[in-house]
Amino acid sequence: MSGSIFGKHFTISTWGESHGRALGVVIDGCPAGIPLSIQDIQRELDKRKPGAHSIYTSRQEDDSVDILSGVFEGRTTGTPISLIIYNTDERSHDYDDIKHIYRPGHADFSYDQKYGFRDFRGGGRSSGRETVARVAAGAIAKKILSEFGVQITAYTYSIGKICIDMGNFDKDIIYKNAVRMPDNKAAIQAEELIESMRTDGDSIGGVVECTIHNLPAGVGEPVFNKLEAVLSKAIMSIGAARSIEFGTGYTLSTMRGSEANDNYMVTREGMVKKCTNHSGGIGGGISDGSPITFRIAFKPTPSISLPQKTITKDMKNTCIQVKGRHDPCIVPRVVPVVEAMTAITLVDLLFQHVLSNIDLIKKALL
Amino acid sequence: MSGSIFGKHFTISTWGESHGRALGVVIDGCPAGIPLSIQDIQRELDKRKPGAHSIYTSRQEDDSVDILSGVFEGRTTGTPISLIIYNTDERSHDYDDIKHIYRPGHADFSYDQKYGFRDFRGGGRSSGRETVARVAAGAIAKKILSEFGVQITAYTYSIGKICIDMGNFDKDIIYKNAVRMPDNKAAIQAEELIESMRTDGDSIGGVVECTIHNLPAGVGEPVFNKLEAVLSKAIMSIGAARSIEFGTGYTLSTMRGSEANDNYMVTREGMVKKCTNHSGGIGGGISDGSPITFRIAFKPTPSISLPQKTITKDMKNTCIQVKGRHDPCIVPRVVPVVEAMTAITLVDLLFQHVLSNIDLIKKALL
Amino acid sequence: MSGSIFGKHFTISTWGESHGRALGVVIDGCPAGIPLSIQDIQRELDKRKPGAHSIYTSRQEDDSVDILSGVFEGRTTGTPISLIIYNTDERSHDYDDIKHIYRPGHADFSYDQKYGFRDFRGGGRSSGRETVARVAAGAIAKKILSEFGVQITAYTYSIGKICIDMGNFDKDIIYKNAVRMPDNKAAIQAEELIESMRTDGDSIGGVVECTIHNLPAGVGEPVFNKLEAVLSKAIMSIGAARSIEFGTGYTLSTMRGSEANDNYMVTREGMVKKCTNHSGGIGGGISDGSPITFRIAFKPTPSISLPQKTITKDMKNTCIQVKGRHDPCIVPRVVPVVEAMTAITLVDLLFQHVLSNIDLIKKALL
Amino acid sequence: MSGSIFGKHFTISTWGESHGRALGVVIDGCPAGIPLSIQDIQRELDKRKPGAHSIYTSRQEDDSVDILSGVFEGRTTGTPISLIIYNTDERSHDYDDIKHIYRPGHADFSYDQKYGFRDFRGGGRSSGRETVARVAAGAIAKKILSEFGVQITAYTYSIGKICIDMGNFDKDIIYKNAVRMPDNKAAIQAEELIESMRTDGDSIGGVVECTIHNLPAGVGEPVFNKLEAVLSKAIMSIGAARSIEFGTGYTLSTMRGSEANDNYMVTREGMVKKCTNHSGGIGGGISDGSPITFRIAFKPTPSISLPQKTITKDMKNTCIQVKGRHDPCIVPRVVPVVEAMTAITLVDLLFQHVLSNIDLIKKALL
Repeated sequence: MSGSIFGKHFTISTWGESHGRALGVVIDGCPAGIPLSIQDIQRELDKRKPGAHSIYTSRQEDDSVDILSGVFEGRTTGTPISLIIYNTDERSHDYDDIKHIYRPGHADFSYDQKYGFRDFRGGGRSSGRETVARVAAGAIAKKILSEFGVQITAYTYSIGKICIDMGNFDKDIIYKNAVRMPDNKAAIQAEELIESMRTDGDSIGGVVECTIHNLPAGVGEPVFNKLEAVLSKAIMSIGAARSIEFGTGYTLSTMRGSEANDNYMVTREGMVKKCTNHSGGIGGGISDGSPITFRIAFKPTPSISLPQKTITKDMKNTCIQVKGRHDPCIVPRVVPVVEAMTAITLVDLLFQHVLSNIDLIKKALL
Repeated sequence: MSGSIFGKHFTISTWGESHGRALGVVIDGCPAGIPLSIQDIQRELDKRKPGAHSIYTSRQEDDSVDILSGVFEGRTTGTPISLIIYNTDERSHDYDDIKHIYRPGHADFSYDQKYGFRDFRGGGRSSGRETVARVAAGAIAKKILSEFGVQITAYTYSIGKICIDMGNFDKDIIYKNAVRMPDNKAAIQAEELIESMRTDGDSIGGVVECTIHNLPAGVGEPVFNKLEAVLSKAIMSIGAARSIEFGTGYTLSTMRGSEANDNYMVTREGMVKKCTNHSGGIGGGISDGSPITFRIAFKPTPSISLPQKTITKDMKNTCIQVKGRHDPCIVPRVVPVVEAMTAITLVDLLFQHVLSNIDLIKKALL
Repeated sequence: MSGSIFGKHFTISTWGESHGRALGVVIDGCPAGIPLSIQDIQRELDKRKPGAHSIYTSRQEDDSVDILSGVFEGRTTGTPISLIIYNTDERSHDYDDIKHIYRPGHADFSYDQKYGFRDFRGGGRSSGRETVARVAAGAIAKKILSEFGVQITAYTYSIGKICIDMGNFDKDIIYKNAVRMPDNKAAIQAEELIESMRTDGDSIGGVVECTIHNLPAGVGEPVFNKLEAVLSKAIMSIGAARSIEFGTGYTLSTMRGSEANDNYMVTREGMVKKCTNHSGGIGGGISDGSPITFRIAFKPTPSISLPQKTITKDMKNTCIQVKGRHDPCIVPRVVPVVEAMTAITLVDLLFQHVLSNIDLIKKALL
Repeated sequence: MSGSIFGKHFTISTWGESHGRALGVVIDGCPAGIPLSIQDIQRELDKRKPGAHSIYTSRQEDDSVDILSGVFEGRTTGTPISLIIYNTDERSHDYDDIKHIYRPGHADFSYDQKYGFRDFRGGGRSSGRETVARVAAGAIAKKILSEFGVQITAYTYSIGKICIDMGNFDKDIIYKNAVRMPDNKAAIQAEELIESMRTDGDSIGGVVECTIHNLPAGVGEPVFNKLEAVLSKAIMSIGAARSIEFGTGYTLSTMRGSEANDNYMVTREGMVKKCTNHSGGIGGGISDGSPITFRIAFKPTPSISLPQKTITKDMKNTCIQVKGRHDPCIVPRVVPVVEAMTAITLVDLLFQHVLSNIDLIKKALL
């Protein structure tokens, strides 16, 4: 195993290159008995597809998914589910120029250092196109979580310095604007910013925020598999992610304990309530029943058409203007990927939680 | 496996509670032939011990380590290495008060939700004391890395709002001040800040920065086991860590591609050089040979003696003033833990890298 | 992960059902730089295909394999290799009768007990057809082993009570007779026996023997991952396998130490030689450089057309005559599967061995 | 991880050498809430201790176990359980002679080939003494299984050619004779046989049989983690095991399908019954609710005092008479080890089974 397998119980094994024949994922560990249709998966993949808007790449992939195994008469059988998405709009010849040149900000150089050579067509395995398989697997994870009422909502928090105003927050509009913001006013500004980047031949970064509601208390494991640790691995494995913070995050480093601690109280209805949620819903690495929140910063798309200094494989200085079709800002397209990786992680840890307590195991088996 | 095992090749299995008999770690996957003495491990443990300074907890543990297996005539044998550190200064009765009360900011509530009950003595397994086992294992990982010239340096970057000045950076003084800062001027201010927190019965957070030098290019695996992803899991599993960022980190979200991309050049000596290092030494999840940098924000110590609102196990509102012996700022003590987790992660991924390329395998075996 | 993933370093994730759309495997952990063509894989799959001979099933699958990822310009890239084999000759309606009936000797009953329902078409995932994915992955493992000179040879040792005579052993004829025996005389008798079973509507079991030559000493890990332990898991996971023995095997239980111990000597040429090889080439779970041998007993094909007593899903006694197309003896078809599982296991443990010794790791990296 | 860690959910990490300071095991993944005392573990360890009888080794270890973590107020906490057993009767100097000589039938040669050197004192990690940690962990696994009514019974089936008569089977006498046979008549003969071996300076092999009662149907996973495959790995990892067979085992290879298939029937009480149990309680790799049976053949103890030809580390022919204290037949002492490994495996697969079906997971969590 060298990096394309994720998860202990709900285990996904992804494969495929940007300009290869197809991409896909095999899921081993999906329990039997879950209703599952192609539409359940296609719906999520469609969220990841570039829209018709000019701020997106002009590469137009259908991203039609096919279920090759593991589902019988509309339900999962408990055996591996194989999903495939064929590439239809690849144009490998766009990349002949970069066969021997290292694009700044890309994986070209480090892949060659590791493997000695690389599939240079569109970045091969290092392309953001691999995330299509994550979203496909995430769709199934979401189906499982829906059985337990768990809800995941990710959205664009900022593009460059344009940030949403929480006062305008409207979950329903996230997928109704091109930038996946829950704030229409900020969305318009962000679209303009990205559009100007495209015109300049440049690109821009941004931040995605994600919240989890209704996750039961008790999910996450002590010491190394703390909920925030496993989520960090899942999310920071998305290309271009450069930081992650939970709850009040980085700011907690400047706070006093008396400010940062979330006090508990019992409500009149007899429910436990936290007076604040600086911890982002996690205590000792384990969910405490309150909403979980985290933010991820993404760097700007490295593919830009402005000229850049770089080197060739045979160690000559040169200059490059990256061709090919690219999103000038990847943040909007990453939003469903963040949801997918979150869902996959939660299913894995939720299943692990079942085994943490003999009472739960006995409830299941006896 | 439910969370106390870490690593695929260099696998550490840690155990022990804050006020139990002992703590320890079993390392499976340490190669044969590495010179190893008790002193190699004790030296690292001593870095983690609270100093004599008043900013530290008054709990004084020897933290003397013993090697129970896996080393013969001064060298590792390739079989499991068992390390043990006995508790000597535990005072469990300090915790009788909290048997039925949930301390804000602690794992008490979520542990009870998960397991139904908990070892309440000093937080049991959720105590920062568990990191003694990480540091012990990390000492062996450092020995391995030293064979390849890899150097890891962590230090306190800020306490509250007091931040080091990179112009004053002096690696040699990190362990010569109580706050583990590489800047004496900032260190004095930080000590005063922590001291004032202690007097107030309060606590304060801070940030640790870590740099890795001389890691060869090629370390890290595509897709899910990117170097930053695996490091994030390792580091975010340290209790109280609330955010992590690599290279220029969060700021990259506001930058343009033309600013953020690190251009390559060939030096006169024929070496590859990156003109900048915004990426923090990682491309496509794989080390590129330049220094790796990351920063971790830690929340303030949750144990404070100021009164806090909270609840009892039987769901009554109450008030608590936490007793026991605690560090008013955990950041200085976390510095060697960050180094340890980094070392363990790097050994694991370095070993994985050997298997990524048939040429390397053939060099080893033929 | 629930059972369709195998291997730690060279990790195969298989999927597919007997009468589904396709079957396949994703291999994660195949090193970069290995020459690989479709023909390399097809050659092994063809060994597993039923021949034209009447002793085989009449189901005729092409078993044409396609490489969907991980290979670029004729070499492996170090990223996941996805292989697919489409089903072309499935006839699911053959199985409508058994939808509600449990076939004796099959997995029908236990699958229903585990999952609540099952894909009944040809046994679904429990069909021997899943081994096509093992053989495809095994072909790549064999390519890797060939770089190190390791040779695996499996053959039919016995069918019913007809056993090969080692005096007639000829490796070159194994695939020149329908029963995969290295002894032509025994092969003729065995073909007749199977033919008579087919006529009777009955079936017969047999034994496969496997030898490994040129495996370097040192492969296998102490305690739980002994070479014979890992091989046993790999081989006993093949449907219908009921026993495995290494070297002199079961007979060793009746021997004295003075008979069973393999004495060492140094030859005139200065080579280590074992005077006997009762241990089958393994000492303390680690290869000793001499040939490794093991034998696996397979039960008779459970699908027979003779009437059998059984029950329905709704718990009624009934009688069944199994239709569908089946091999009256699966042993000949299992021979390449044994080779494949052996190859996959050896690659995994060979890679593990590289990491067991700091000298080997330094040879690779420095 | 290089071989001393076993199990996915109930994960044991064992450590220690024959003549080191201590041996032990860390168990990660034991659910919270299980009553556990030192006596529960000591009872099983005592079964493994050599008796006072002359057929046993004269090395007398107390094998007193200590629980260092993971248990609080008499119940498991869900965090790692660390168990330690100190060596008290080691006599390392017994082994100075073999420092440079390879004992036939032992791991000395292959360990040196693998690691370059070895802990030669009593075989170090390759000694049968490592099984003390397996039995300690197995005791906890048995406690868990007892919650579900699962019963494991292993016993000596044969010593040399002396085999128990099933007509005399009496489970209650297994630990009342020195050879762990459920047949007193055979036991007397077997004791005599072993005694004569001891007098001769020789040793003898034998067979252990194990049965599992009351395991619910549905345990075991398709394809690679079939119940017999995982059990085979567990059991064949016990030093000296040379073969394993399930149910009717090797004999099935000579049977017809019409003989070998186990027919189902519904009893008058409405229960499913198998008319025979040739399959040994497993169908398609999954338990079917009937008793599971398997037999393991062990080779004779390699340590014998008769002179044997062998070689030195510097490649000279020589002769050896093995000193030290040894059992002339290890079979009786292996009986509780077989039970332990079986218990550990069953717990792991039972836990896995909970996650195979969404209905079971919902029963646990909702």
